[in-house]
Amino acid sequence: MNNSIDYLKNLDLSGYGNDFLLTWEKSKDQLEATLILAEILRERHKQGKPNLVFDSGLAVSIFRDNSTRTRFSFASAANALGLAVSDMDEEKSQVSHGETVRETANMISFMTRVIGIRDDMYLGEGHSYMKEVSEAVQTGYEEGVLHNRPGLINLQCDIDHPTQSMSDLAMLTNYFGSLDALKGKKIAMSWAYSPSYGKPLSVPQGIIGLLTRYGMDVTLAHPEGYALIPEVLAQSHKQVQDSGGSFNIVNSMDDAFKDADIVYPKSWAPFHVMEERTTLLKQADKPGLAKLEQECLANNARFTDWECTEDKMKLTRNGEALYMHCLPADITGVSCEQGEVSATVFEKYRRETYLEASYKPFIIAAMMFLTVVNDPISALNKLDN
Amino acid sequence: MNNSIDYLKNLDLSGYGNDFLLTWEKSKDQLEATLILAEILRERHKQGKPNLVFDSGLAVSIFRDNSTRTRFSFASAANALGLAVSDMDEEKSQVSHGETVRETANMISFMTRVIGIRDDMYLGEGHSYMKEVSEAVQTGYEEGVLHNRPGLINLQCDIDHPTQSMSDLAMLTNYFGSLDALKGKKIAMSWAYSPSYGKPLSVPQGIIGLLTRYGMDVTLAHPEGYALIPEVLAQSHKQVQDSGGSFNIVNSMDDAFKDADIVYPKSWAPFHVMEERTTLLKQADKPGLAKLEQECLANNARFTDWECTEDKMKLTRNGEALYMHCLPADITGVSCEQGEVSATVFEKYRRETYLEASYKPFIIAAMMFLTVVNDPISALNKLDN
Amino acid sequence: MNNSIDYLKNLDLSGYGNDFLLTWEKSKDQLEATLILAEILRERHKQGKPNLVFDSGLAVSIFRDNSTRTRFSFASAANALGLAVSDMDEEKSQVSHGETVRETANMISFMTRVIGIRDDMYLGEGHSYMKEVSEAVQTGYEEGVLHNRPGLINLQCDIDHPTQSMSDLAMLTNYFGSLDALKGKKIAMSWAYSPSYGKPLSVPQGIIGLLTRYGMDVTLAHPEGYALIPEVLAQSHKQVQDSGGSFNIVNSMDDAFKDADIVYPKSWAPFHVMEERTTLLKQADKPGLAKLEQECLANNARFTDWECTEDKMKLTRNGEALYMHCLPADITGVSCEQGEVSATVFEKYRRETYLEASYKPFIIAAMMFLTVVNDPISALNKLDN
Repeated sequence: MNNSIDYLKNLDLSGYGNDFLLTWEKSKDQLEATLILAEILRERHKQGKPNLVFDSGLAVSIFRDNSTRTRFSFASAANALGLAVSDMDEEKSQVSHGETVRETANMISFMTRVIGIRDDMYLGEGHSYMKEVSEAVQTGYEEGVLHNRPGLINLQCDIDHPTQSMSDLAMLTNYFGSLDALKGKKIAMSWAYSPSYGKPLSVPQGIIGLLTRYGMDVTLAHPEGYALIPEVLAQSHKQVQDSGGSFNIVNSMDDAFKDADIVYPKSWAPFHVMEERTTLLKQADKPGLAKLEQECLANNARFTDWECTEDKMKLTRNGEALYMHCLPADITGVSCEQGEVSATVFEKYRRETYLEASYKPFIIAAMMFLTVVNDPISALNKLDN
Repeated sequence: MNNSIDYLKNLDLSGYGNDFLLTWEKSKDQLEATLILAEILRERHKQGKPNLVFDSGLAVSIFRDNSTRTRFSFASAANALGLAVSDMDEEKSQVSHGETVRETANMISFMTRVIGIRDDMYLGEGHSYMKEVSEAVQTGYEEGVLHNRPGLINLQCDIDHPTQSMSDLAMLTNYFGSLDALKGKKIAMSWAYSPSYGKPLSVPQGIIGLLTRYGMDVTLAHPEGYALIPEVLAQSHKQVQDSGGSFNIVNSMDDAFKDADIVYPKSWAPFHVMEERTTLLKQADKPGLAKLEQECLANNARFTDWECTEDKMKLTRNGEALYMHCLPADITGVSCEQGEVSATVFEKYRRETYLEASYKPFIIAAMMFLTVVNDPISALNKLDN
Repeated sequence: MNNSIDYLKNLDLSGYGNDFLLTWEKSKDQLEATLILAEILRERHKQGKPNLVFDSGLAVSIFRDNSTRTRFSFASAANALGLAVSDMDEEKSQVSHGETVRETANMISFMTRVIGIRDDMYLGEGHSYMKEVSEAVQTGYEEGVLHNRPGLINLQCDIDHPTQSMSDLAMLTNYFGSLDALKGKKIAMSWAYSPSYGKPLSVPQGIIGLLTRYGMDVTLAHPEGYALIPEVLAQSHKQVQDSGGSFNIVNSMDDAFKDADIVYPKSWAPFHVMEERTTLLKQADKPGLAKLEQECLANNARFTDWECTEDKMKLTRNGEALYMHCLPADITGVSCEQGEVSATVFEKYRRETYLEASYKPFIIAAMMFLTVVNDPISALNKLDN
């Protein structure tokens, strides 16, 4: 991958904006700039060179769902750029909106340069909460209440998971050599069986919403009833028309894996279940939630053969597709009795899944950099002196 | 406001001391220096200039009550000066004293430059706990156990809330142009109805204990039975004799608002209720506490007309008094059914309340600076080079 | 103590390694280098000189048991060297092993320079967990997943508590003048009565496992049935043969205190009880655990005369032995009705116990420095310029 500052200069960074909420709100130049900057920061880190563009300032994280790896990626990125992390952990069940959001967003931002938010529990909530925070700090900045407009990074919402999908894209460009090399490659974004329930839809949505822009053959596979949200499907269909790739939905893991260059087998909850769950959660209907969970697990159990095994891998191109996962995976016989992937397949690609994850702190750092720093090229040149 | 280093030089900073616990323990020069330094740091921050006076060191926060905005203000101030925050969250119910306090205070201070404490739950406890911590680190420093004497900042106790009242004073000097311009201005520090119970007394006490020193006409208003603690009332009466202002207590919101230049309508629990509550909390008397809460809420409910409405605002000077609040306010029809302030009044002054809050991180930074840095003028000059 | 860089140069630092898990895995040169470097960092801190060897990077702490003083010591050390702390608090009851440990260790380490772990609850678990983390990050580094190999510091395990024992050794060398001066000195590492149960064995084990290497007369005293784990006893017996000291186990506090230069009276749970407890904890056998606790407290109660009183102190050399404790101590009439030490003895040595604790942040900083920095002498020289 071409990771020079000179190449970065040729990309149109205007209008990058102060938020990184959904990848499809960014131009291809803006996405490529994010990838290249992440590579530059990664290479500098490898060489022991500092990436300190800020002398001080806070990076506030708001986690409305548990997280270990994203929390540490966010902390790493903030620290690398010179910011100190302040966590604001809200009660998971609390869905604040309106005046409270506007006020709190300003109160935590007087010396804050970046806000990262994870809010993926409630369908229809996460993204709209982030928009509220964005508007609040924008107004605060315009009203002179805030000296700086904090950059806002989506650390996973109900619609997209851009820090994950962009890390995955960084992995793919490094694995295959360039963004251009992805053209024509087939990726199977497939549902897989898991003994758990209620996993968010944002990873598969993020993958199809991003990779359909790069001329890839994107195949989404899931059992009937496990559809993703309609907006992202529509967006993906639209994007392949520009990119020259294809986007297909199938109900068979085997069909998806057939001749695939990349497979991404991962469990998620059906769209309509997440909607029902959101309603029940808002009503605090515990018996309803328990009943829904039972039904879902029973339904999941009909699809235990949706497992990424060695046999399934043989269907892929030369039997050697790249296996991807956002981690942690449900590994059969290791982390659960029966899960998304067999132990031998996972072990074969273990190092690759770790590498895939290793891009995330640098992707987040690049997003912070580009949403907040006025003149990124100058700032990069200054780092060298 | 005159925020130049030259003006700061003329103020007598000797004896500022290592603690900032109660505003009335500080001379007027020391208070003014705090305001001016806060302005200098704020102006530098606005211009993107660093305020790093420390190269390393911890800022320890001890929160014995929940907090979002003070927590972030403390974190922002510490970070701006170059310190890293370490939180020591104690169980809310634990009221440690004696040997444990002395030992813990030293154990957390080996590389600590600042300690910030919020302890406002128990009447008669918070301030005395801070005094114990202060003595402990002072002895530790004198005995050679600690290389530095950490500065101690009161982030709200049972008696005073100096980071709030000083931020309010910063707001007022900026709003009216100078400290001198406050002379003769009337402020109505008024109780207001809230559907909650047990709110601390430290905000109104902090306001009357500070503003009676600046020649203002300070009017404290509350229903009968909602008195503040006697020491602060006595202190306020004493101070107006020096300052040339006045201090009156009335039992009518209307009387207080009449011709007021500033109104500060805010709920608090009656002094004697807080005393009773402290006793019950110490005895862990849950039925007693529940009964007390019921009685209080019932009593509060007799005063729902103590609400800052548009009609009440018309009583103020030209109907245009500045509305102040430490936030979050109980806004009628927004955050509760009926509360301290009507939605239209709050919305009219929303930006001003945010600005009021925006001074706090800089006020805290100035307090840290002046309690810890030996020669603040030199340190400021060094920042410029 | 000779704390010059020149003296440090003469010590053999090769093979110090990336982990500090057990003191007896380190050569005497490596231990002495740790002490000397700690002194250099302490002296620099006292003089207000920065010890920033890193420009950025995380120091991750994993606490599987509560901690206040070690947590703050770790945070202080990390901050002093230029690292930002990220806590990863696991559920206390959760004993993860295998794949999960390997994965998590890598996921938190992409920009991490140091990992500190406290895991002292389960006999047979803590040290083996640390070995797993060590192997995981070593492999991650060799596989190119991690740019740096994080240093691993044992903040207390089931076997050793090296940051405590090395701080104690720093205290002793400063108190008696040098490491050499410890030769022939008698230390009584004695069990003492406490009204609590289940205290870890790692402090006494750390003390005998370290001090038997310095030609001291190490006497371990405890009631019958309160033995330490066999490996550390064997290690201690072996070490006195090289060091020229002695190692004796007695069943009388009086015998141990007789002519002692140093006494270290501290409670711990019997080895076999900790084993039984570990089994019951793994089985989540609550009634079994309650029964065990009852038995233990009843057994402890037979030995309330194992208290460090003024009378007992009279038995020591000239009645003036140094009293040591890792804190917090169970002080009779202060923190409990009857405990490990009388109030008068503790008060006489209070300052010394605080000083003893004050070495810990610097010892931890020295361990971080030596496990992570490639050429410590150059790095130290660079700090001076």
